[in-house]
Amino acid sequence: MRKITVLGSTGSVGVSTLDVLGQLGGRSAFEVTALTGGNNVDLLAQQARATGARMAVTANGARYQELKSALSGTGIAVAAGRAGILEAAEQDSDLVMAAIVGTAGLEPTLVAARRGADVALANKECLVSAGELFVKAVQQGGGRLLPVDSEHSAILQVLNEDHRDTLERIVITASGGPFRTWTREQMAGVTPTVARMHPTWSMGLKISIGSATMFNKALEVIEAKHLFQVTPEQVEVIVHPQSIIHSMVGYADGSVLAQLGCPDMRTAIGYALAYPKRARLNVERLDLVKLARLDFEPPDEVRFPALRLARLALRRGGQQSAIMNAAEETAFEAFVATRIGFLDMAEIAEAVMDDMQGWPHASCMEDVFICDGEARRRAAALIARIPSPTPRSA
Amino acid sequence: MRKITVLGSTGSVGVSTLDVLGQLGGRSAFEVTALTGGNNVDLLAQQARATGARMAVTANGARYQELKSALSGTGIAVAAGRAGILEAAEQDSDLVMAAIVGTAGLEPTLVAARRGADVALANKECLVSAGELFVKAVQQGGGRLLPVDSEHSAILQVLNEDHRDTLERIVITASGGPFRTWTREQMAGVTPTVARMHPTWSMGLKISIGSATMFNKALEVIEAKHLFQVTPEQVEVIVHPQSIIHSMVGYADGSVLAQLGCPDMRTAIGYALAYPKRARLNVERLDLVKLARLDFEPPDEVRFPALRLARLALRRGGQQSAIMNAAEETAFEAFVATRIGFLDMAEIAEAVMDDMQGWPHASCMEDVFICDGEARRRAAALIARIPSPTPRSA
Repeated sequence: MRKITVLGSTGSVGVSTLDVLGQLGGRSAFEVTALTGGNNVDLLAQQARATGARMAVTANGARYQELKSALSGTGIAVAAGRAGILEAAEQDSDLVMAAIVGTAGLEPTLVAARRGADVALANKECLVSAGELFVKAVQQGGGRLLPVDSEHSAILQVLNEDHRDTLERIVITASGGPFRTWTREQMAGVTPTVARMHPTWSMGLKISIGSATMFNKALEVIEAKHLFQVTPEQVEVIVHPQSIIHSMVGYADGSVLAQLGCPDMRTAIGYALAYPKRARLNVERLDLVKLARLDFEPPDEVRFPALRLARLALRRGGQQSAIMNAAEETAFEAFVATRIGFLDMAEIAEAVMDDMQGWPHASCMEDVFICDGEARRRAAALIARIPSPTPRSA
Repeated sequence: MRKITVLGSTGSVGVSTLDVLGQLGGRSAFEVTALTGGNNVDLLAQQARATGARMAVTANGARYQELKSALSGTGIAVAAGRAGILEAAEQDSDLVMAAIVGTAGLEPTLVAARRGADVALANKECLVSAGELFVKAVQQGGGRLLPVDSEHSAILQVLNEDHRDTLERIVITASGGPFRTWTREQMAGVTPTVARMHPTWSMGLKISIGSATMFNKALEVIEAKHLFQVTPEQVEVIVHPQSIIHSMVGYADGSVLAQLGCPDMRTAIGYALAYPKRARLNVERLDLVKLARLDFEPPDEVRFPALRLARLALRRGGQQSAIMNAAEETAFEAFVATRIGFLDMAEIAEAVMDDMQGWPHASCMEDVFICDGEARRRAAALIARIPSPTPRSA
């Protein structure tokens, strides 16, 4: 019996994780140590009952009683708030699915890494905001770091460590998002409703918008550097609208190895959960004849400045990646609240990055949080100065 | 120093092999035990001098003196004929590149396998005509069997033996050859000159024509079955005109792993020569942005009966694969001599296969040669009955 904790079980990755756990044998193969969720307490309680979880935690302290009532008589331990989430991460389990979105996922994932659990990483911020510290924590803890992003899972699947000396490049594919062919003028007026309509993947709100701005891809470039210990120059991005090739690795003999599949995050989740074996999953099989063609384009860093910012952050080093991410996350929230326009997100991120160029390196997690907080404050200040846009209707 | 023998060093695979050996360190990394060639004695002598080979052998006994003179004073041993080729294969070396085209490659490759050399296999007939016997010989000899075909090399590169239990299918890509979009009526009149014009690969005559008929792909399906120990149903063929994805492996988690690259056989040769490491090669790097798109089509077994015949041979079992290959090889020679038409090749192969359905299984190599000879005789008899076509000009 393998013990599993799912941090963020009510989000889209979390829900898919429970589906995959069911397909891999459910209660006969896994013991669910803890599940944590946000405000969707009903779903969290239902998941905890269905999986026989030992503990369920809502991040929202105000919802403690609600969750407690929903699970009364089940024997499932209930907790809430930041402390509750950290307690869940602390519970002894073999693998922790780290699927809390955003900077909120940083601390609990770090706790899991430090205690030596294998970390199936869906949260991008652990590597983007605290890359070196996080990788060090995993190494010291002794667990494995298994990416759950389709792109990084693809790379893991075709990066043979025996061939590391001949690794030349990592090629991350990007769908290009819903505005791949749009001009900047067209993008200026889009609303959150339009922006979340991803062409190929069914995903959560933050990731959908991140796909539209390509900030998502910018974070993946940074993550790849830390996950696979490559130089920024070794990480390429290519636009591939069909999202069938999930990413590639290029070697010094001219070979490029790729992982392909129908867009379904359960394949990557299954790979992390079954690692080093492979899962048997009831997911759609790839039919290239039906698809008929795969297309490729260069990424456009003028229309999608996020990719340029990722390279800028890696070139500048220090906490520039964390600053970019925190500023962008703050701007994302303002965009979702229709306070700012679509193109403002990247502009705010870049302005805060420029503004905080002299910020000292992080030598501990506290430094990361301070920097993160400061970047958010500065982003918020910039946002406050922007007049509300008049969004066009979706 | 790794000791290498190249059987068929003057053919296109052989020439590329010597190029790759040079790129991998040449004389400082490899000692060339023996080189063998056919009628191109000048090139063979030049290769033997350049690599410092210990032995050079021409398959043509009549050319012994010519080769002897060309290498006089070099100290390089010279031999000729079938016995000479077998002697070369017998010489102690770590790896034998088996690049003799056709049934002629069977015996010397088997000799190399039996003595325990690693076999880099470019010859298709070893697996097609004597699959089980050959695989058994390799196993008993204790060497590795490393395919040199781009397609099988691709499969080897992405077939992780740790994931063997979740292997679902092998997908072999086919360029579709120069007549991919032609009707059967159009194909009926093509000449050898036209048929050898391969759209993406620069190859030898036999392989070029085999690509045009897709007999090449038919043989690869049969080879894949033996090389990777899969069922015929697990081997799919997909037409992919750009020849960029060289083949794929599909797993039970929905993942499809693929090897891609510019069409250059040196990548696959380098993979076999450097195995289990990877080579560093001066070959063109893949640029998917420049390619812009990859296309996929179902194979058409009506216009290209060879694929249907491969499945038929595997379904029937016994020596049907050997019969198909021998009859096709005989028909190929008649086609090159403009004795028969392009479409006649498959028809002759199928007629001989039907005719020899009751032929006993092979329990030793002698059985293979008897069956091979009989299939050739029957094919020749059928060819003799066909009136000479009037080929259209190229």
